[in-house]
Amino acid sequence: MSTPMNHQVRLAARPVGLPTDANWQFTTEPVAQPGPGGVLVKTLYLSLDPAMRGWMNEGKSYIPPVGIGEVMRAGGVGRVVASNNPAFAVGDAVTGSLGVQEYALFAENELRRAGLARIDLRAGSWTQWLNVLGMPGMTGYFGLMDIGQPKAGETVVVSGAAGAVGQTVGQLAKIKGCRVVGIAGGPAKCEWVVRELGFDACIDYKGGDVRAGLKEHCPQGVDIYFDNVGGDILDTVLTRINRKARIIICGAISQYNNTTPVAGPKNYLSLLVNRARMEGMVVFDYADRYPQAIAEMAGYLREGRMRSREDVVRGLDNFPKTLLKLFNGENFGKLVLQVADDDAA
Amino acid sequence: MSTPMNHQVRLAARPVGLPTDANWQFTTEPVAQPGPGGVLVKTLYLSLDPAMRGWMNEGKSYIPPVGIGEVMRAGGVGRVVASNNPAFAVGDAVTGSLGVQEYALFAENELRRAGLARIDLRAGSWTQWLNVLGMPGMTGYFGLMDIGQPKAGETVVVSGAAGAVGQTVGQLAKIKGCRVVGIAGGPAKCEWVVRELGFDACIDYKGGDVRAGLKEHCPQGVDIYFDNVGGDILDTVLTRINRKARIIICGAISQYNNTTPVAGPKNYLSLLVNRARMEGMVVFDYADRYPQAIAEMAGYLREGRMRSREDVVRGLDNFPKTLLKLFNGENFGKLVLQVADDDAA
Repeated sequence: MSTPMNHQVRLAARPVGLPTDANWQFTTEPVAQPGPGGVLVKTLYLSLDPAMRGWMNEGKSYIPPVGIGEVMRAGGVGRVVASNNPAFAVGDAVTGSLGVQEYALFAENELRRAGLARIDLRAGSWTQWLNVLGMPGMTGYFGLMDIGQPKAGETVVVSGAAGAVGQTVGQLAKIKGCRVVGIAGGPAKCEWVVRELGFDACIDYKGGDVRAGLKEHCPQGVDIYFDNVGGDILDTVLTRINRKARIIICGAISQYNNTTPVAGPKNYLSLLVNRARMEGMVVFDYADRYPQAIAEMAGYLREGRMRSREDVVRGLDNFPKTLLKLFNGENFGKLVLQVADDDAA
Repeated sequence: MSTPMNHQVRLAARPVGLPTDANWQFTTEPVAQPGPGGVLVKTLYLSLDPAMRGWMNEGKSYIPPVGIGEVMRAGGVGRVVASNNPAFAVGDAVTGSLGVQEYALFAENELRRAGLARIDLRAGSWTQWLNVLGMPGMTGYFGLMDIGQPKAGETVVVSGAAGAVGQTVGQLAKIKGCRVVGIAGGPAKCEWVVRELGFDACIDYKGGDVRAGLKEHCPQGVDIYFDNVGGDILDTVLTRINRKARIIICGAISQYNNTTPVAGPKNYLSLLVNRARMEGMVVFDYADRYPQAIAEMAGYLREGRMRSREDVVRGLDNFPKTLLKLFNGENFGKLVLQVADDDAA
C-alpha cells in the first residue's frame, strides 16, 4: 500500500469580519510515522466551535492564536493508527486537539498539550464525545455548576439554547431542579429544546421580543444567565435579573465577527442594583475534573435523562463553509465535521 | 422661645442630565415635636454622595426613588434635641437618614428604616462619621473585603481615589498588604493620595494616559479594580486585569448624568479571557456587620494608619450647587454640607 496522504486546512490569513475562502489554504502531505513515544491518529470527526473565530485573531487571549500557515486548531475524535506509546494502542478511540486534517501526528511531548485521551464509545457515540461528553459539555457543566451554582427552584436562562453548550446547560439545570428558559433562533430550535430536551420554555429571538418573552417565561426573574451570545440579548437579560444573580460569560458569538468595537453591556449597572455577578470562564481550567463531569453526564445519557443532537456535515473540504453555519445560526445542534468513516467499527 | 423653623430642600422635578435649580424646592415649616417613641434630631452635617443622583430618577433600583415633593434623601449626623424613646437621649450624637433639612423628625416605626444610631465622637469626628466611619467607609470596606477579597501582594486599582470611598479602599488595601494605585482627577488629588494616604501611585486621568499609567504602575497587572466611575476608565482597566481578577462595581459617576444610554464596558470579554468577575454591591446589605467594620477602621484612625479628608461646604441653601461638585470632580475628599454648628460641643 502506498503512503497515505494527509489533507489539511491551514490558516492562510487573519480574517476581518467573517472568515472567507481567502483565509484558508488546503495542503496535502504524506502521512509521517510516529517517533519514539509518539502517536498517529486518524481523524474521524472534528468539533466546529464559535471559539475558533477567536483563535484566528492575533493577540493575547486565553490560548495563543493559530499561526499563519499552521493547521487550523480543532478538537476531534479518531482512531489511533500507529503508536510508540504504551498509553495508546492501535485501534484506540481517542479525543484531543487533532486539528483540521485527516491525520494528526503527535510527538511524545505534544500529547499532554493536545489533551489526547482515550474515550469509551459505550458511554457516548463519537459525536457525543464532541458534544455532551466533550468540550461543550464540559463548558456547560463547569460554567453552570461552578460559576452559576444553581439551586433548585431558581430560574436559569441560556442563550444559544439549541447549540452545543446550551443543550447541556439547560438539561443539566433541569436535572438540578431549576426552571429553564432557552433563547434560540427560529421555531424549530425552540420547539426542539422544549419538546425533546424538556426546557420549560424557549424564546425565539429571531421571531419575537426577547424582553416580552423573559417577562412571560421568567415570572420570578432570572437567577442565572448562561451567556453564549453577548450583544442585545445580554443587555435585555440584564434588565430581568434577580438579586445575587450570576451571569456566566461563556462567549459572545454575536460579537466575534464585528469589524466595529464589541458592544459592551450597557445595562451592566443592573449588576450593582441587584448585587449580581458577571464572570468569565474558560473550560481548560477544569481539565483535572473532566473525568468526574463526564461520568456524571454519561450517567444521565444512559438513563435517558439527557439527550444530544449533533449537526454533522461531511468532508474536510467543507470546513470553511461549514464553520460559517455557526455565525449565521444555521446549525441545529452541535456542529461536527465528519472527516472519515470509522473503518474499525 | 418661639417655635424653631425647619428649612428643607425638596425634590421638585426629576432631572434630565445634571440637576439644575428647577429640580429643587426650598420649604420652611415649623419644627414638630416627636410623638410616643419618636425622636427629633437637629442636623449638623449632611453627606453628599454620587448615589443621590440615582435616587432622583424614577424607576426600580436598590432603593425607592425620592418622591416628587419629598425632602431629598441624605445621610447625616446631628444631635438628638427631643426624644420619647429610651434608646435616644437629648444630646446624643447620632447618624441616620436625616434628609436635606435642619431638623429630622422620626416616628418610632421610622427609626429602623432611617438607620438612626448613636455614634461615638471619640472614635471619629462628626465628618469622619460621614466618611471613613459612615456609608462611604462601609462601602469601601465591604466592597474591598467581601467582594474583592484582597490577598497580600496583589495589585489593587481604585478610581475616584481621593473621594470618600476611594480613600478608604486604598488605605485599607495598603493595610492588607496590597500594592495600591489610585486614579483621580488632577495633580493635587494624586499627590495627596500618594503622600498623605500612602498609595503606591496615582494616575491623573485628566492630565494623562490612563492606559500608560496602568502599564507603568501595575507591572504585575491588576488583581482588584474598585470601580466608582465606569465609562472609559473601566474599559481601560479591563485591558490590564489578571486572571481571576475581581472588579467591584460600586458606582459609575461618569454615567449618572448621561442623557444618552449608559456606555457599557466594551472590553467586558476580558472577563472571559481572564476568568475574571465583575460584581455589584450595595452597602445596605452589610448593615448587620457595620459595627465590626467601624471598630476596625476606628482602630486604624486611632493608630494613625488611616487618614481622612472631608470637603466641607456650609449652608443648607448651598445644597444644589454643592451637589454638582461631585459630578465635575471639584470636591477634594468626602463632600459634606454643614447645616449648623454643634451647640452642645
